[in-house]
Amino acid sequence: MRIIGIDPGTLALGYGMIDEASGELTHVDCGALIAPTGMPMAERLYNMYTGLRDVIARFEPEEAAIEEPFVAKNARSALAVGQAIGAVTVAIAERGIPLHRYTPAQVKQAVTSYGRSDKEQVADMVCILLGLPEPPRSSDAADALAVAICHVQAKFLASLEADN
Amino acid sequence: MRIIGIDPGTLALGYGMIDEASGELTHVDCGALIAPTGMPMAERLYNMYTGLRDVIARFEPEEAAIEEPFVAKNARSALAVGQAIGAVTVAIAERGIPLHRYTPAQVKQAVTSYGRSDKEQVADMVCILLGLPEPPRSSDAADALAVAICHVQAKFLASLEADN
Repeated sequence: MRIIGIDPGTLALGYGMIDEASGELTHVDCGALIAPTGMPMAERLYNMYTGLRDVIARFEPEEAAIEEPFVAKNARSALAVGQAIGAVTVAIAERGIPLHRYTPAQVKQAVTSYGRSDKEQVADMVCILLGLPEPPRSSDAADALAVAICHVQAKFLASLEADN
Repeated sequence: MRIIGIDPGTLALGYGMIDEASGELTHVDCGALIAPTGMPMAERLYNMYTGLRDVIARFEPEEAAIEEPFVAKNARSALAVGQAIGAVTVAIAERGIPLHRYTPAQVKQAVTSYGRSDKEQVADMVCILLGLPEPPRSSDAADALAVAICHVQAKFLASLEADN
């Protein structure tokens, strides 16, 4: 099962692709789609949409997971990140890929067993869980890998519950 | 010049298409894309994206205007409306149509000369400005027509300033 994790933002959108087979996780690819500063919002969103579409076409993930703030810090940042999530959703949905949403606390909990860990801890744990020699250069890419790992764990926990 | 106005929402997305020629405004089409209640967010956004894409393909607007809350009432509603704006932006941008953003106060001001008018007043004024026999049945469609009219006025005011 190939999973794409996404850390949405209107300036940088992180993505992380992993494979899961019998509980084994493998890193496939990760990166960040960066919008040039000063680019109008509509262009930034469209660039992210096309960039993500290319990544999806290339790696063909079967499931997708996105980090969505449960309640953003403020209405303005919520409006911005919401727009990124909207553009991402179109790119995912037009390929018929199921999209799962997780809060930042769920993602941190999944990779560090603690909901309030910092970005560096998340990147280090992603590294260990995927057997990477060093953390991804982009913290957005590391976060996106954490989102994908979070989804694998959520599926595993759901399967345990289904068995009971 | 054909303009599409959009009133974004994740449950109902209003659109209104008008033609402007030498200051004359003509109603072309309007309506609302309604998401069935209970439909998951990703499907709702994708349905709106495809619905809007169909409207654009059919009527071929040259410019687009969208109402964007300057600061939404709360972070949760901002996150939701942001997602609708993101999906709309992809549909508009992939046709290379310029997208202009206006606040609700700007839209109300444009059609009623008053920034705090209610929905019914906006619909009545849209009716008068476009010479419609009666207001659109959907208030989202009426709002969307008001957004398109707001854009025409903004362009007109900008042209006056450019002349000075």
